[in-house]
Amino acid sequence: MAEGFKFSPCVFNGQGAVEQSLYALGAVSKGSTSVGIVAADGAVIATATRMSSPLMEPRGILHVAPIDTMIGMTYSGLSGDFHLLKKHAQKGAQDIKLINGVPVEVKQLAHCLAFVMQEHIHSASARPFGAALLIAGWDKGLPQLYACSADDSYFPRKAIALGRNAAECTNLLEQRYNKKLKVEDAINAALLALKKGYEEEQKGPMPSEAIQMGIAYPEGFERVEFDIVDEFYADCV
Amino acid sequence: MAEGFKFSPCVFNGQGAVEQSLYALGAVSKGSTSVGIVAADGAVIATATRMSSPLMEPRGILHVAPIDTMIGMTYSGLSGDFHLLKKHAQKGAQDIKLINGVPVEVKQLAHCLAFVMQEHIHSASARPFGAALLIAGWDKGLPQLYACSADDSYFPRKAIALGRNAAECTNLLEQRYNKKLKVEDAINAALLALKKGYEEEQKGPMPSEAIQMGIAYPEGFERVEFDIVDEFYADCV
Amino acid sequence: MAEGFKFSPCVFNGQGAVEQSLYALGAVSKGSTSVGIVAADGAVIATATRMSSPLMEPRGILHVAPIDTMIGMTYSGLSGDFHLLKKHAQKGAQDIKLINGVPVEVKQLAHCLAFVMQEHIHSASARPFGAALLIAGWDKGLPQLYACSADDSYFPRKAIALGRNAAECTNLLEQRYNKKLKVEDAINAALLALKKGYEEEQKGPMPSEAIQMGIAYPEGFERVEFDIVDEFYADCV
Amino acid sequence: MAEGFKFSPCVFNGQGAVEQSLYALGAVSKGSTSVGIVAADGAVIATATRMSSPLMEPRGILHVAPIDTMIGMTYSGLSGDFHLLKKHAQKGAQDIKLINGVPVEVKQLAHCLAFVMQEHIHSASARPFGAALLIAGWDKGLPQLYACSADDSYFPRKAIALGRNAAECTNLLEQRYNKKLKVEDAINAALLALKKGYEEEQKGPMPSEAIQMGIAYPEGFERVEFDIVDEFYADCV
Amino acid sequence: MAEGFKFSPCVFNGQGAVEQSLYALGAVSKGSTSVGIVAADGAVIATATRMSSPLMEPRGILHVAPIDTMIGMTYSGLSGDFHLLKKHAQKGAQDIKLINGVPVEVKQLAHCLAFVMQEHIHSASARPFGAALLIAGWDKGLPQLYACSADDSYFPRKAIALGRNAAECTNLLEQRYNKKLKVEDAINAALLALKKGYEEEQKGPMPSEAIQMGIAYPEGFERVEFDIVDEFYADCV
Amino acid sequence: MAEGFKFSPCVFNGQGAVEQSLYALGAVSKGSTSVGIVAADGAVIATATRMSSPLMEPRGILHVAPIDTMIGMTYSGLSGDFHLLKKHAQKGAQDIKLINGVPVEVKQLAHCLAFVMQEHIHSASARPFGAALLIAGWDKGLPQLYACSADDSYFPRKAIALGRNAAECTNLLEQRYNKKLKVEDAINAALLALKKGYEEEQKGPMPSEAIQMGIAYPEGFERVEFDIVDEFYADCV
Amino acid sequence: MAEGFKFSPCVFNGQGAVEQSLYALGAVSKGSTSVGIVAADGAVIATATRMSSPLMEPRGILHVAPIDTMIGMTYSGLSGDFHLLKKHAQKGAQDIKLINGVPVEVKQLAHCLAFVMQEHIHSASARPFGAALLIAGWDKGLPQLYACSADDSYFPRKAIALGRNAAECTNLLEQRYNKKLKVEDAINAALLALKKGYEEEQKGPMPSEAIQMGIAYPEGFERVEFDIVDEFYADCV
Repeated sequence: MAEGFKFSPCVFNGQGAVEQSLYALGAVSKGSTSVGIVAADGAVIATATRMSSPLMEPRGILHVAPIDTMIGMTYSGLSGDFHLLKKHAQKGAQDIKLINGVPVEVKQLAHCLAFVMQEHIHSASARPFGAALLIAGWDKGLPQLYACSADDSYFPRKAIALGRNAAECTNLLEQRYNKKLKVEDAINAALLALKKGYEEEQKGPMPSEAIQMGIAYPEGFERVEFDIVDEFYADCV
Repeated sequence: MAEGFKFSPCVFNGQGAVEQSLYALGAVSKGSTSVGIVAADGAVIATATRMSSPLMEPRGILHVAPIDTMIGMTYSGLSGDFHLLKKHAQKGAQDIKLINGVPVEVKQLAHCLAFVMQEHIHSASARPFGAALLIAGWDKGLPQLYACSADDSYFPRKAIALGRNAAECTNLLEQRYNKKLKVEDAINAALLALKKGYEEEQKGPMPSEAIQMGIAYPEGFERVEFDIVDEFYADCV
Repeated sequence: MAEGFKFSPCVFNGQGAVEQSLYALGAVSKGSTSVGIVAADGAVIATATRMSSPLMEPRGILHVAPIDTMIGMTYSGLSGDFHLLKKHAQKGAQDIKLINGVPVEVKQLAHCLAFVMQEHIHSASARPFGAALLIAGWDKGLPQLYACSADDSYFPRKAIALGRNAAECTNLLEQRYNKKLKVEDAINAALLALKKGYEEEQKGPMPSEAIQMGIAYPEGFERVEFDIVDEFYADCV
Repeated sequence: MAEGFKFSPCVFNGQGAVEQSLYALGAVSKGSTSVGIVAADGAVIATATRMSSPLMEPRGILHVAPIDTMIGMTYSGLSGDFHLLKKHAQKGAQDIKLINGVPVEVKQLAHCLAFVMQEHIHSASARPFGAALLIAGWDKGLPQLYACSADDSYFPRKAIALGRNAAECTNLLEQRYNKKLKVEDAINAALLALKKGYEEEQKGPMPSEAIQMGIAYPEGFERVEFDIVDEFYADCV
Repeated sequence: MAEGFKFSPCVFNGQGAVEQSLYALGAVSKGSTSVGIVAADGAVIATATRMSSPLMEPRGILHVAPIDTMIGMTYSGLSGDFHLLKKHAQKGAQDIKLINGVPVEVKQLAHCLAFVMQEHIHSASARPFGAALLIAGWDKGLPQLYACSADDSYFPRKAIALGRNAAECTNLLEQRYNKKLKVEDAINAALLALKKGYEEEQKGPMPSEAIQMGIAYPEGFERVEFDIVDEFYADCV
Repeated sequence: MAEGFKFSPCVFNGQGAVEQSLYALGAVSKGSTSVGIVAADGAVIATATRMSSPLMEPRGILHVAPIDTMIGMTYSGLSGDFHLLKKHAQKGAQDIKLINGVPVEVKQLAHCLAFVMQEHIHSASARPFGAALLIAGWDKGLPQLYACSADDSYFPRKAIALGRNAAECTNLLEQRYNKKLKVEDAINAALLALKKGYEEEQKGPMPSEAIQMGIAYPEGFERVEFDIVDEFYADCV
Repeated sequence: MAEGFKFSPCVFNGQGAVEQSLYALGAVSKGSTSVGIVAADGAVIATATRMSSPLMEPRGILHVAPIDTMIGMTYSGLSGDFHLLKKHAQKGAQDIKLINGVPVEVKQLAHCLAFVMQEHIHSASARPFGAALLIAGWDKGLPQLYACSADDSYFPRKAIALGRNAAECTNLLEQRYNKKLKVEDAINAALLALKKGYEEEQKGPMPSEAIQMGIAYPEGFERVEFDIVDEFYADCV
């Protein structure tokens, strides 16, 4: 409670950086790890909640959320901020569908969310959102994966990890990624990346129930049933 | 009167944390202990008010509040903030019932309250709420228990304790909990947890009148009559 | 001109406390002492103004105010804040009577005032109210006594003292209190408590004209005529 | 983005005091001395302007102002703040007369002004008023004298002095006051008190033209003609 | 620009003073000197602009401004603030004439401007006006001279100097003033006072073109033609 | 963008100065030099942009702007602020023409702009304008030159330089100025002043393309064609 | 985050500079390099995204955006701010076309955007935009290139580089530039400048996919197809 403040809390510091933006990135980097990867026949997103007590029911809250029939989203960072962004995403997707008469594309949705997030690191009196998003979908005949950073940028990616241990997980994804990957290989790579990040930090095995996953197929986005996730995880190498 | 301030008081600090959020957690951890536990045939919530004078009438104010026929709520933290959240909860439950034509589910209510609380650690010029909630109910054929933290997250739990000595009490609950628990065992576990937390701090026995309790049965949520609570407590081992 | 400030002045400090709330309690603890006590056949509230000059006319301003036919109120703390809260109380009592068709109950009124006070330690840009209230009334066939603290809590009490020397006065009340007390005993206890608090601080006798008193009977709340107060005080042991 | 909002400079300090309130009292204590005294047959108010140059015309601005036919007012403190409060007083007196159909009473007017002043030490974004008021009138068959302090309290007084050297002047009034005083004795006491305060500070005689005075008789309030004031002052012992 | 701030910049400091008010007085005391003096048959106001370059045209901007047929005004302090106050004065004079059906009196105008200035040292979020005004006019059969200080007071004066070297100039005016003065003596005294103040500071003669002057006669206020001013100045002893 | 309230960064400092005002003067003193000079048969304004790269096209943006058929304007300071002030000037000129039915005079325009600038150093929540203006025109049968300073004053001048090296350039103008100057001499003096200021700072010759110029003739204001400027500059001694 | 605050975050500092403006320039200077160059038969703009991972798809987001049939725009700095400015640009271009009935000119568009950016370093409570723009188009029979700086200035340029290593790149452009350049030479120069800047900083070759480019021809502005860019880059010397 000690330092002074600025009206919009998001002014530049002397190095030309928006500090609240950097700090928001910090909030993301302490959140649950989430990963995304594009295969030839689908885009996979997944996330792993840290289990701190056996009384927790981590799958009680959905961290992989469908936004539209074709698009789903996961995140790393503050859960409350994600819930609000999910609301923005669902509203934005509906609006665009109404205006254009065709479903929203992943890139359009990412653009729309980045606008919301930009406002919070520019002119709003609120702090930036402390959450980064992974958006997977299928449009224009191809699987799509976009990331929205806690600063206001958004960009397509072949594969990426966010949150705790993001760098190491992305590393593993870089080794596993190639343009010919099938969805099952992508699932495998995603699970291995989550597992590596989780176990290095928690010094113990990642329980299957910590994982949630969604896949964008040509027919639409679907959240993977938890027992199927468990099977994938049991088989993952 | 000495330090500077922040516009929304809830900006990030250099570690990527929202300090007011952490401080609100501190306010909760100094409040009366409350516990919740899910049995096979019901969900139990209870709380114990610290007695600082024999002239107090702790049961004069209800700390376990019915929100809907099927749902009840207790809390740890600032009582004024709880009263306001209770109002939000009752209004939210009514609204959802009106819109959907079916009673609100516990998860929906927790989601709705988490939105209110998120706003207070994001964009509002007010401080966060200094109260955490335990919401018990019965829907989809099962007993439900959700916690809303003073930061903006909400989550289902098999059992949990909040407020003073939360860690120790949760510990006791973890030892007692199993999936086959009956309501009477759950009541016993809840009372033991409250008793342990209370007595370690107050260095004296917990009087029966400090306790308030509510149970979500398949037929609905009911606040337990005080004389029944006293009986349970007299029998508790 | 040197120090900074806070937007809502009521954010949390690092210990999880709302400092303005604590400071408001400080303002109360420097105000005139007021006491309340519940007898079997009535509830008594009283207050004693500190006389600093013989030219003062302490009974010129009423510190024991009727709110409704059945309810009255006194306070410790800032007089201006009390006047505003009294206005809120009278308005709230009328509103509830209009809506429900029956007179307000003491608990309802206390709840209503606690909401007003909660707003001032949560989201308002004003400081909290620097006054605590004692509300006496008769409803549901029983005498009622509620206190509204300068932080946002409210609670029923068998007896309580607020303001200067509150702890010592409450102590005396604890010794005198029992469930069978008649109103005349309660008056006696209240006057002794005020006297003790007053004389310890002022190092001199408490003059009769410093005292104001009100009593809630089954027939209604009445402010005690000053000459009757003087008689009670002359007889008090 | 907050339209129309207010932030009060009047929060509590760590001692439970509203500092701006204390500082406003300081502003009053540096203003011209004013005195009020109630006689059996009238209430007298008077004030003395400090003469710092022979080119000044202290009686060019009226410091004793009629508010209503029955009520008048003087002050110590900032002249601009007094002018604004006078406006509030005149408006308030008219409003109450319109609503009730009978002239405002002194106590009602003091209550009304205290509300305005309370707002400025509670929720307004402006500083408190740096002026204290003395209100004299005649109602309910008796002369009335009320003081409104720069903090938000108001109270009836038999006699009081405000502003520079208030303590000493009040002292003199205490010695002179008794319940049987006639108006002419009250005038004498008021002038002696002003003279004592003035001369001790200025180290020189108080010129007659520094003085302004008003008296509330049963027939109404009247500002005393300056030549009559001069006569009183010449005769004063 | 480093220290914290308060919302209305005009709160009290610990000595009971409004600092911005004191600082505004400082702004006035660095402005061009202006003087006013009341003669038996008129009121004279004058001001002298400091000449810092031969390329200046000090008489290009009028510093002595007619407000009404009967009233004129000059100032010391910030020119921009004066222009705004002049606008307020002209508007106020028109309004009062419209409402009352008779021209505004000097005292009424001073009262009206003091209200505007009071608002700026009380509740406005702007700084106080950094200008003091001298208002001369003729009403009720007499010449009038009022000063409005940069703090919120206004008062009639027989003679006064504002701005740079105000104390010394006022001193000279005190020596020269008597109740029988004719306008030509008053002009002489005003010019000598300006000259003394100017030359002591600038260490050189005051050029005639630096001076502007206005006089309130029974027939109305008139700005003195510049060649007449030059003649007066040439003759002044 | 918060309407509904204002806080001015332009309060007084302890020396009675408005610091932002002083700092704005600093911004002007670092801008491109501009000069103005009044001849018997016209008023000349000119400015010189500092060339920092051969790829610049300094004449691509007009720094000498016509405001009305009879009036033109140049500036020193921040270009963005000038663009906004130019907009105010053009709007103000149109408004005055519409209201009065005759073209705006230079003094009226300067007065109007000074009001806009005064607002920014008094009550606006924005900083002051970081630009000073030179306004040239022809009205009442005479050439006119007014300067609007970055603090809120405006004044007529026979000749003046603003911006970088203003003092030295003004010095040169003082030596060259006399009341009989013809426009061609004024152009010569203006170019020499610009050249001197430019070359002393840049340690190299001032290129012709850095210069822009405008002249107010009895027939109207005209921006001087760039090739004519180049000729004047080639001939200038 | 340490010092007191400023309301509009863009007040002047003691050196007469708007610090947020300087810091915004710093944000630009850390962004991707962008270059612009005017040839005799077209205007070329190009930018190069830094590749930090092989999983990136830098061409997934368009950094060279068409604004109108005749005009395109690129940038250096914060991508979110660019997206917002692009929106302003597209809206501004449409508005001007609607009002004037003819397409917007490059200079008009730059003027319009500079106004938006000026507001953010003058009166807005938001920080300035952390992006600089390069706008290329063809109007009045000529290719046009304007830059909008992160402070509020805009200006035409023959060639310029922004962002990382802007100085060195501009240097290279100065060596390559001449008035007779054809578009293909301009493309070559632009690519060499980007390559030099990129490789010096990244200590490795600039991959072709990092580059995006647009060209304004007499027929209109067109974004260069990525495979054509690759060809240009392969051939570039």
